Amino acid sequence: MSWIKYSQDCQFSLQNLPYGVFHLKTESPTQARPGVAIGDSVIDLKVLEQSGLFPFLKEHSPVFSKAHLNKFMSLGRPLWQQTRKTLIRLLSEDEPTLRDDPELRGKAVFKLDFVENLLPAKIGDYTDFYSSKEHATNLGKLFRPNDAPLKPNWLWIPVGYHGRASSVVVSGTPIRRPWGQTKAPTATQPTFKKCARLDFELEMAFFVGPGNELGVPIKMENAEDHIFGLVLMNDWSARDIQAWEYEPLGPFNGKNLGTTISPWIVTLEALEPFRVHSPQQEPAPLVYLKDAPENKSTYDINLEVWMGTKQTPVQKILHSNFKYMYWTMKQQLVHHTITGCNLRPGDLLGSGTISGPSEGEFGSLIEFSVGGKRPFKLGGEGGSERCFIEDGDSLVLKGFSLGDGFTVGFGDCAGQVLPSHEF
Amino acid sequence: MSWIKYSQDCQFSLQNLPYGVFHLKTESPTQARPGVAIGDSVIDLKVLEQSGLFPFLKEHSPVFSKAHLNKFMSLGRPLWQQTRKTLIRLLSEDEPTLRDDPELRGKAVFKLDFVENLLPAKIGDYTDFYSSKEHATNLGKLFRPNDAPLKPNWLWIPVGYHGRASSVVVSGTPIRRPWGQTKAPTATQPTFKKCARLDFELEMAFFVGPGNELGVPIKMENAEDHIFGLVLMNDWSARDIQAWEYEPLGPFNGKNLGTTISPWIVTLEALEPFRVHSPQQEPAPLVYLKDAPENKSTYDINLEVWMGTKQTPVQKILHSNFKYMYWTMKQQLVHHTITGCNLRPGDLLGSGTISGPSEGEFGSLIEFSVGGKRPFKLGGEGGSERCFIEDGDSLVLKGFSLGDGFTVGFGDCAGQVLPSHEF
Ligand SMILES: [Ca+2]
Ligand SMILES: [Ca+2]
Ligand SMILES: [Mg+2]
Ligand SMILES: [Mg+2]
Ligand code: NI
Repeated sequence: MSWIKYSQDCQFSLQNLPYGVFHLKTESPTQARPGVAIGDSVIDLKVLEQSGLFPFLKEHSPVFSKAHLNKFMSLGRPLWQQTRKTLIRLLSEDEPTLRDDPELRGKAVFKLDFVENLLPAKIGDYTDFYSSKEHATNLGKLFRPNDAPLKPNWLWIPVGYHGRASSVVVSGTPIRRPWGQTKAPTATQPTFKKCARLDFELEMAFFVGPGNELGVPIKMENAEDHIFGLVLMNDWSARDIQAWEYEPLGPFNGKNLGTTISPWIVTLEALEPFRVHSPQQEPAPLVYLKDAPENKSTYDINLEVWMGTKQTPVQKILHSNFKYMYWTMKQQLVHHTITGCNLRPGDLLGSGTISGPSEGEFGSLIEFSVGGKRPFKLGGEGGSERCFIEDGDSLVLKGFSLGDGFTVGFGDCAGQVLPSHEF
Repeated sequence: MSWIKYSQDCQFSLQNLPYGVFHLKTESPTQARPGVAIGDSVIDLKVLEQSGLFPFLKEHSPVFSKAHLNKFMSLGRPLWQQTRKTLIRLLSEDEPTLRDDPELRGKAVFKLDFVENLLPAKIGDYTDFYSSKEHATNLGKLFRPNDAPLKPNWLWIPVGYHGRASSVVVSGTPIRRPWGQTKAPTATQPTFKKCARLDFELEMAFFVGPGNELGVPIKMENAEDHIFGLVLMNDWSARDIQAWEYEPLGPFNGKNLGTTISPWIVTLEALEPFRVHSPQQEPAPLVYLKDAPENKSTYDINLEVWMGTKQTPVQKILHSNFKYMYWTMKQQLVHHTITGCNLRPGDLLGSGTISGPSEGEFGSLIEFSVGGKRPFKLGGEGGSERCFIEDGDSLVLKGFSLGDGFTVGFGDCAGQVLPSHEF
């Protein structure tokens, strides 16, 4: 238990301690610095470091002085673990250092209500995978109704594509409905218009810790050491633009209008109690993608999609679980670097949309509305019908794992869609 | 004429003045700073700025103190033009400021032989287009022999994909032959092996100047103001890996093993005398991609590919021209941002492989060797046969425009292929 009090269902427990970057609402974004969330509070890591509370980081200091966590990410697991141990001690109810020092507490502890989050890292490169078998199958059926839903490579390769790093934004940033080229299946030529099939994608993404040199792949046995932690991710998708553009070089404008991540990075240490086996892989992966069978290389994380409109309050519409992913983060990372591609601290690797096997476990509206053919209804007075996202609609992704008497949660990954600018 | 003497075929004329980032070979890379190349020399812009020779940059200073040109790129065309005008004056033969000040010259002028180039910018995002009709047609025939070579969207969209920024390297960096998954057309399952069809791609790429806010597209009439200048680019490609992985999300591991650019950025100002009309576009582009017909929106730049092996000296094997590109840089940039995708100063946008209409004007070996079926021979004693790149081979791309009594050249974009590491 911590001297910062919170309830059992609080997302930011002492067992969690997710990392983010914040500034007080009364401060300018140039004053942002790293922090850790606990209960209804955030702990200022810059102040703790300056107060000499992380002596083991000394040779790397300052680690927490910038408005991003890239340097901390580069330090690797042993120092992450030591930092976590120190934070758990400092925040434990029987530890007086912070608890009984009102001056230090005043400088280092703030209510979350009074802070603004920025992106937790400078994202050098962002990659998005496509690792849910259920999602790839659903989407294949919709995009290529006359072909086998899974391309022949899907069961062999953690298929992914390079995404757009500049348009990754933090939860709360509004998303503007894009213009683009689309072509109706029956039309003879494309049209330039506002996106009419705007969608979300329920994903998680991990931040890379230490990177690798160009030309030197990361091996499976070391893969986990390169994973710092996870966030929720909404990969906003313009389905009509994507459908017309994606052959043969993949999604481009259909995906670069904005990608929202949750502000708090939950570390692998915090997720340790929720390790589970990943789905059985058949055919067996090629040698470089092979994980030891005893390893539990994925995590049981409950995921939820909440949606609201200008009239209707935000409500839960879908749920899923991170453990459904066919390809693990370790396999994604190893595959990404097998050509020698260099990863850098702060790179972001998205899971791909996470759909599940049963009814209601879809990770996107194109799946839920069966390609826009089966509208669903949002509850409440005057509940609206939807196939895709309309202007003013809000999407909120949530994620949490339930421990024995505590919760490890991700906070909200939220965004509201604004109407297009006129062209 | 300049007081720095050079011959008429020198790539770095007073009319050129390309920007790069360099350090002396005797210095550490941490001391790198921006410079301009002229004749056999480089002019240190950090020293010129510190000496007060760019008074008009004062409110932004320091502009040239870092090991990248991103800040200068962000300033926009009027300040780029003023800087160029000042450099032309300082380097003109009748201007004594530098010419007659041996102390300043000693601090600010170095022989290119004694310097090392780094990447000229911090590349936030790298995008690669596919804008040569000849190349897209050739590749379509090879990758999809039973389909129409151009996908239906090609004549409507400057097709592109998000590339890997971390693996963009400067000319001279060795490239390691990658491992990866490939599947022979006749095989029932893929194999994990060393790439057997390693290729180059002859491209040019432009650096973005001022960027745009997320959600706010760049319009055609302003597009040119966002283009800082061009480099040569070799988009190394593992054809066997690419062929197996690319459906449906596009090239990934086939392209992230390394992308080489030439170190000196030739500005649009320097290319101004070489403006030409781009190819007639039929069908006419949609409204947002429409350029005024009187605009000459592309450039006449001669391109050459030189190749050598461990036994055979580097020799010219192919040639092409930037003016063949069907889609212009302005159209690529406008299309990229039409969804609101934000570009940032220092982003790199590649042209795609530039093949031409006639024999010998191919931009890749997969085209030149007809998919690996027609080996070509390198001249010289014991001249080797090649379909793709072998270990130890070197590729050098060259580019230049011939003015009236002067040359505007790009310098070399060179790289040698090293054998794979053992797995
Ligand atoms: Ca996605
Ligand atoms: Ca290319
Ligand atoms: Mg996105
Ligand atoms: Mg490349
Ligand atoms: Ni259910």
